[in-house]
Amino acid sequence: MSYVDLYMGGGPLLAGPGSGDAAAVVFGVPFDSTHSYRPGTRFGPDAIREAFNNIEVFHPGLRADLEEVRIDDLGNAKHTVSPDVMVEMVGRITAELAGGGRQVIILGGEHSITYGSYPAFPAGTGYVVFDAHYDLRDSYADARLSHASYLRRIIEDRGADGIVHVGARAFAREEAEFLAQNKITCITDAEIRAGRGPALLQDAASVFGGVYTSYDLDVLDPAFAPGVGNPEAAGITSRELLDMVGALGSSKVLGADIVELNPLFDSGATAALAARIMSMTIAANL
Amino acid sequence: MSYVDLYMGGGPLLAGPGSGDAAAVVFGVPFDSTHSYRPGTRFGPDAIREAFNNIEVFHPGLRADLEEVRIDDLGNAKHTVSPDVMVEMVGRITAELAGGGRQVIILGGEHSITYGSYPAFPAGTGYVVFDAHYDLRDSYADARLSHASYLRRIIEDRGADGIVHVGARAFAREEAEFLAQNKITCITDAEIRAGRGPALLQDAASVFGGVYTSYDLDVLDPAFAPGVGNPEAAGITSRELLDMVGALGSSKVLGADIVELNPLFDSGATAALAARIMSMTIAANL
Amino acid sequence: MSYVDLYMGGGPLLAGPGSGDAAAVVFGVPFDSTHSYRPGTRFGPDAIREAFNNIEVFHPGLRADLEEVRIDDLGNAKHTVSPDVMVEMVGRITAELAGGGRQVIILGGEHSITYGSYPAFPAGTGYVVFDAHYDLRDSYADARLSHASYLRRIIEDRGADGIVHVGARAFAREEAEFLAQNKITCITDAEIRAGRGPALLQDAASVFGGVYTSYDLDVLDPAFAPGVGNPEAAGITSRELLDMVGALGSSKVLGADIVELNPLFDSGATAALAARIMSMTIAANL
Amino acid sequence: MSYVDLYMGGGPLLAGPGSGDAAAVVFGVPFDSTHSYRPGTRFGPDAIREAFNNIEVFHPGLRADLEEVRIDDLGNAKHTVSPDVMVEMVGRITAELAGGGRQVIILGGEHSITYGSYPAFPAGTGYVVFDAHYDLRDSYADARLSHASYLRRIIEDRGADGIVHVGARAFAREEAEFLAQNKITCITDAEIRAGRGPALLQDAASVFGGVYTSYDLDVLDPAFAPGVGNPEAAGITSRELLDMVGALGSSKVLGADIVELNPLFDSGATAALAARIMSMTIAANL
Amino acid sequence: MSYVDLYMGGGPLLAGPGSGDAAAVVFGVPFDSTHSYRPGTRFGPDAIREAFNNIEVFHPGLRADLEEVRIDDLGNAKHTVSPDVMVEMVGRITAELAGGGRQVIILGGEHSITYGSYPAFPAGTGYVVFDAHYDLRDSYADARLSHASYLRRIIEDRGADGIVHVGARAFAREEAEFLAQNKITCITDAEIRAGRGPALLQDAASVFGGVYTSYDLDVLDPAFAPGVGNPEAAGITSRELLDMVGALGSSKVLGADIVELNPLFDSGATAALAARIMSMTIAANL
Amino acid sequence: MSYVDLYMGGGPLLAGPGSGDAAAVVFGVPFDSTHSYRPGTRFGPDAIREAFNNIEVFHPGLRADLEEVRIDDLGNAKHTVSPDVMVEMVGRITAELAGGGRQVIILGGEHSITYGSYPAFPAGTGYVVFDAHYDLRDSYADARLSHASYLRRIIEDRGADGIVHVGARAFAREEAEFLAQNKITCITDAEIRAGRGPALLQDAASVFGGVYTSYDLDVLDPAFAPGVGNPEAAGITSRELLDMVGALGSSKVLGADIVELNPLFDSGATAALAARIMSMTIAANL
Ligand SMILES: [Mn+2]
Ligand SMILES: [Mn+2]
Ligand SMILES: [Mn+2]
Ligand SMILES: [Mn+2]
Ligand SMILES: [Mn+2]
Ligand SMILES: [Mn+2]
Ligand SMILES: [Mn+2]
Ligand SMILES: [Mn+2]
Ligand SMILES: [Mn+2]
Ligand SMILES: [Mn+2]
Ligand SMILES: [Mn+2]
Ligand SMILES: [Mn+2]
Repeated sequence: MSYVDLYMGGGPLLAGPGSGDAAAVVFGVPFDSTHSYRPGTRFGPDAIREAFNNIEVFHPGLRADLEEVRIDDLGNAKHTVSPDVMVEMVGRITAELAGGGRQVIILGGEHSITYGSYPAFPAGTGYVVFDAHYDLRDSYADARLSHASYLRRIIEDRGADGIVHVGARAFAREEAEFLAQNKITCITDAEIRAGRGPALLQDAASVFGGVYTSYDLDVLDPAFAPGVGNPEAAGITSRELLDMVGALGSSKVLGADIVELNPLFDSGATAALAARIMSMTIAANL
Repeated sequence: MSYVDLYMGGGPLLAGPGSGDAAAVVFGVPFDSTHSYRPGTRFGPDAIREAFNNIEVFHPGLRADLEEVRIDDLGNAKHTVSPDVMVEMVGRITAELAGGGRQVIILGGEHSITYGSYPAFPAGTGYVVFDAHYDLRDSYADARLSHASYLRRIIEDRGADGIVHVGARAFAREEAEFLAQNKITCITDAEIRAGRGPALLQDAASVFGGVYTSYDLDVLDPAFAPGVGNPEAAGITSRELLDMVGALGSSKVLGADIVELNPLFDSGATAALAARIMSMTIAANL
Repeated sequence: MSYVDLYMGGGPLLAGPGSGDAAAVVFGVPFDSTHSYRPGTRFGPDAIREAFNNIEVFHPGLRADLEEVRIDDLGNAKHTVSPDVMVEMVGRITAELAGGGRQVIILGGEHSITYGSYPAFPAGTGYVVFDAHYDLRDSYADARLSHASYLRRIIEDRGADGIVHVGARAFAREEAEFLAQNKITCITDAEIRAGRGPALLQDAASVFGGVYTSYDLDVLDPAFAPGVGNPEAAGITSRELLDMVGALGSSKVLGADIVELNPLFDSGATAALAARIMSMTIAANL
Repeated sequence: MSYVDLYMGGGPLLAGPGSGDAAAVVFGVPFDSTHSYRPGTRFGPDAIREAFNNIEVFHPGLRADLEEVRIDDLGNAKHTVSPDVMVEMVGRITAELAGGGRQVIILGGEHSITYGSYPAFPAGTGYVVFDAHYDLRDSYADARLSHASYLRRIIEDRGADGIVHVGARAFAREEAEFLAQNKITCITDAEIRAGRGPALLQDAASVFGGVYTSYDLDVLDPAFAPGVGNPEAAGITSRELLDMVGALGSSKVLGADIVELNPLFDSGATAALAARIMSMTIAANL
Repeated sequence: MSYVDLYMGGGPLLAGPGSGDAAAVVFGVPFDSTHSYRPGTRFGPDAIREAFNNIEVFHPGLRADLEEVRIDDLGNAKHTVSPDVMVEMVGRITAELAGGGRQVIILGGEHSITYGSYPAFPAGTGYVVFDAHYDLRDSYADARLSHASYLRRIIEDRGADGIVHVGARAFAREEAEFLAQNKITCITDAEIRAGRGPALLQDAASVFGGVYTSYDLDVLDPAFAPGVGNPEAAGITSRELLDMVGALGSSKVLGADIVELNPLFDSGATAALAARIMSMTIAANL
Repeated sequence: MSYVDLYMGGGPLLAGPGSGDAAAVVFGVPFDSTHSYRPGTRFGPDAIREAFNNIEVFHPGLRADLEEVRIDDLGNAKHTVSPDVMVEMVGRITAELAGGGRQVIILGGEHSITYGSYPAFPAGTGYVVFDAHYDLRDSYADARLSHASYLRRIIEDRGADGIVHVGARAFAREEAEFLAQNKITCITDAEIRAGRGPALLQDAASVFGGVYTSYDLDVLDPAFAPGVGNPEAAGITSRELLDMVGALGSSKVLGADIVELNPLFDSGATAALAARIMSMTIAANL
């Protein structure tokens, strides 16, 4: 073996985990062109990788040690400023990866990327989203395809039956109305604060054969996740969120995205949390 | 010519809310000349405005949607480095606005501005202040008119009957003695931690026909409010604070200030919280 | 209702200068959706205002004291993430203002806003642009209307006769080819370094009855202008740039924009320079 | 008395508290050469001093007012990049100070400094360490003497009988195995979350005649302590930690260190907490 | 010798230089209460010390090696927010130190501290000040004793005969008028740019038996000194400034201050330059 | 071709350059354990890559367009905190790559990595180093293998005949003595300022069959390169440096390193300059 092989990482970006068949495949989408407040989520994917390479990934509770697990990292998708191009690209990449036996992990970037990724999974795949917002605007800042409206677009295309929304605490009147009309399953901030999040989530997710989870980090209180595009006061705690991530261990998580991390405003706390979500999501699914 | 014309810039800064009669009038006081640790609260008013323009202001629980409410923004008071000039100026502006039917919201700047604003309200107006500190020093850093002594000056002028102090956790021996001598009503950090803040506050405020509230953001734990001049470890949480803000919905809040935000040390979390306090204070009073 | 009423916030932000007829009218365009590297130029307009309010604006060399001159500030144009909507909006606002006798100053935002503003001036108005880049790509990151291609769009619409490009030092092969084909007048980085910028510029601008100037701050060395979206090594100095701004005093500057300031990466130096460019541009035209 | 004596601090770094015999002696160790993620803990000692000089140090609950207590500050130990030199130096300084009747407070720097300081105390001195990690690696990044392995070195030298580990939540498989083999007393993150930290700690510490406490600030949730070298998601809260610091008031704390503060990533919140830990540790021991 | 003596710095703040009689005595004044734009110069003194401890201080051109020279550091003067108290205090400290044979170096803080320090030197001591501004306002932001008016106060007290002003580039009309009336000797920005600074300065300073120099770091271009309170575009370069510092080697510099460093906005470049100015000032006077 | 192949970068880290035989091979060394002032150069390699991916790489003057050139990026060497391990590792990697026909580019990390890389090139390879410092200490901070002593180690091993030192301006007396004893060829800061750098460098390098160049970015003035570990006031400008990089186009540059970039203190300007140095070094050698 050459010294280059010995010393150099080899894999693209995530530092070298175990060998064998890959348990998960990761790619990043550095897109933030429809951001409405503080741009910079394009730098999210690399920040999550850096944190992931520096946290402990041994999960005795989940009986998994990711140091022994292979994770394929494809790097970042090419840069574009067009939401349409991005959604089509993410859709095609995800579709190509989704059937391969590996869990698919997508690192954002803003939340609109989910409009590309989730629909690439088979019909019947449940969609569990954690978010301070509903992202159900009809349009926002003159864009119908936006981080603030992506979920409305998904529901218009596929209906609301497979949707579970967790943790919303800030929304507009039009979103509340759309929500009521479409009878979307919600686990509220108040229910989570009362300690009922994990049980409610396990119930809600149990009906799906497979699940896609979407983590908009602004669901967390800005104290726990300062590095986001749109901080909203008084959200859930990291303990509450990670308890729910763990509760999803009883479901088969086919794919997941972690979005809205903005490293320009982060102390490192948000990236560490994103890395932990990724680590637990992979570990719980082994 | 009115004092408002004399001192205020003229035009608004908060992005365009609803029409009709204004529910509230806002002005900023970019003053921080007696700061004792980390200066920069002079940048507070504009940071709160920017956050306010980027959060959701629909409050279904309070049956209010601020997108339909007019708020007048007078801009910032002229810059001065003299505490005496500042207090006189803030007093005159506030007095002119206080009788006009609109709730008056003042954005600081350091806490000494309250020595100008609160006394401009009618005798009998209650004073509810949230603060990690008592601000009851006799003088501080060679100034008798300072953010660390403003409340002592108020009590010397008007007595302690109308005062309710909430959340103190850090103080000097001389302040503890003044507090005991003057029998000031206090809701302690320990009581809030035990979940009794909202009820105690509602009780304490119920005796007043009208209330002025003062939010020194350092009452919060620095985790929730890193962007302050004087962080003190281990304060209250944003949930605990916002529950108390909501509890004041049963009182008539004539005026309020939000002070000690220092954007130079903020991640955006503190500004978002300040904006939410402002939004709830207006919404609860409609 | 006028387009200004439709799109502009309403009230001013620049602190109160003199009275009398306004010499200039200012508005901001917080748009950065096609940014290709470091987003955040949307925060540019307010940063320039804050710096302008804190620098000295007495210009004895130009025999002008802006403390005695009225400048109207219309605030910022509404936020959009659509380049098409932005360009149409900026075009309409500028057209409405351009004929009014006041110099029009536009604060960016990314360089694509110039595709809205400059064409709103009468045919025959010269266009003098300072930029490290040519912005002559055919498309970039899947957008034909982008900060990297706006000048190609302008030249396709209006030809290259009125264009003077100053200070380019970083470009792609396709831009060099378009440049040669269109015989665009250029003042090079090397000519400026040799001290010939002001004379060459005065010559080049002397043929126009009126001029529109566009300052992409990345024309400066990143040492002098760190707060930009796309820093390119080794540009011109602030002395060299301001000498050229002064040299334009012999032309009639009908309008100007100052773009690509990114406060998220600035020490304050770039904003101070932008404010000085604005101050000199107004003073030189009185 | 001269004016220099009157106005200048005199003591090296901590601002001048009371007179009389010193209750504590403080020194800093600006060492971070074996850091594995985000370097900068070398700036920790001065940041803790600055915060300490700006917080309130009156502790009515502990019946102590540090404004009346003398604390000797020796400044920082000389800079070295050699772990061996650092450990020997810290050991010698601590040994010289340990028998002098003053509580010894050491400000880090990375956690490896404890391998110098704790063993300088008499055999039988208990060791209570708060840390998100066990620091029980056999070696890390090619160093056997490292912040990630210092505790293994201590246990190899002195056995595990005197060790109480508090708050671990992230570790490697090899550490879990070493922990089990050596039967180290642990108070877990889950026990602390359940509210049992103070009682368990008082029990565990009661067996020691004297105690050395070591605070690795990453035991806290990154929300409460963003300024650390290795943030790990979802740790304990500042209330939980300070309750345990207070619970140690029933033990004789002969020495303490506060380590892993990284001011380059701090908002000031972490430094304020470190200062409070120091203040409570001294006050509880008077 | 004890290990504490061996390893600990001993001196307050500047790391341990040589032995023998002290060549200079240093103290800091962390005062910024009349700041008009970006506060934070109170953190200046410690930032200059930290940089000084990390730069090379061997000056072969000046035939001096400060590693062999003793410098006494008295630490920082007590914190006050009152300009009057500060000026009196600085005046008394300086007067006590000025006659002692050691060069007196004062680290600011804002420029108003010079109103305390310079007048404490004997009548006839020349005053050479480097500044982008004249600081000749009659009053500013309601303060007659301010960083923007301190020099007018000095001239009112002692006349303008001993004053040499270097490098002004931004001022108000009232300052230009006062300047003309008082026939103050000036070396202009244009003269410095033309390379004539050192010679003009040596000439101007040659008439004084002893000189006090005052370095307001904003005389530098913000590119070279971003960390200042009031950045003004397009100032002198560090080469130009240091050439002038060296030119003062032919004068006897009795005292000097270095003011207006604001570490909150610095990359470290400004502090490094301040440290070099201090190092050259001491070395040139040995 | 799959969509993954179409859209994903593929190569590890540098975004997709041209095809054909690789002109250069790049690897990073994230090592900074002997840093003496501001740590963080370990983050340098990724920051240079990010900047490189965002600057223009068309060099008409050098008749090269790197968009058409293949560059192999091996990623970063494994993390270690041991200087000995690092030097051996870098030596082995470099030796394996040096004979392969591709130019070898090494991204630091601190300057001590050069003690591994340069000696891996054949005897007779010239060594041209740009640095504010000589790095000729015998030892520093208790380390003989340090960024401050690496060049002394090289000269002890291989003699001083092949060494050309460019741009030193800060050093200790012991270094000046070693320099004189060893008759090292130097191009001084004063010679560069006088415009003679390129010609002197071309002369000095012309004697070597092949050259290894080492760019310690602190050779630049901190205005042009704020993001370094040890800023020293008043260095060379980016124009002066890039003129010298271009002058090396007449030599065969077999390998190069770019070291001491510290992104924690950078505005992006230093990374952009590092990327340009890398781009010109490759382009000039095609
Ligand atoms: Mn979302
Ligand atoms: Mn959201
Ligand atoms: Mn207060
Ligand atoms: Mn307070
Ligand atoms: Mn441009
Ligand atoms: Mn450009
Ligand atoms: Mn530890
Ligand atoms: Mn730890
Ligand atoms: Mn000044
Ligand atoms: Mn000045
Ligand atoms: Mn070096
Ligand atoms: Mn160097």
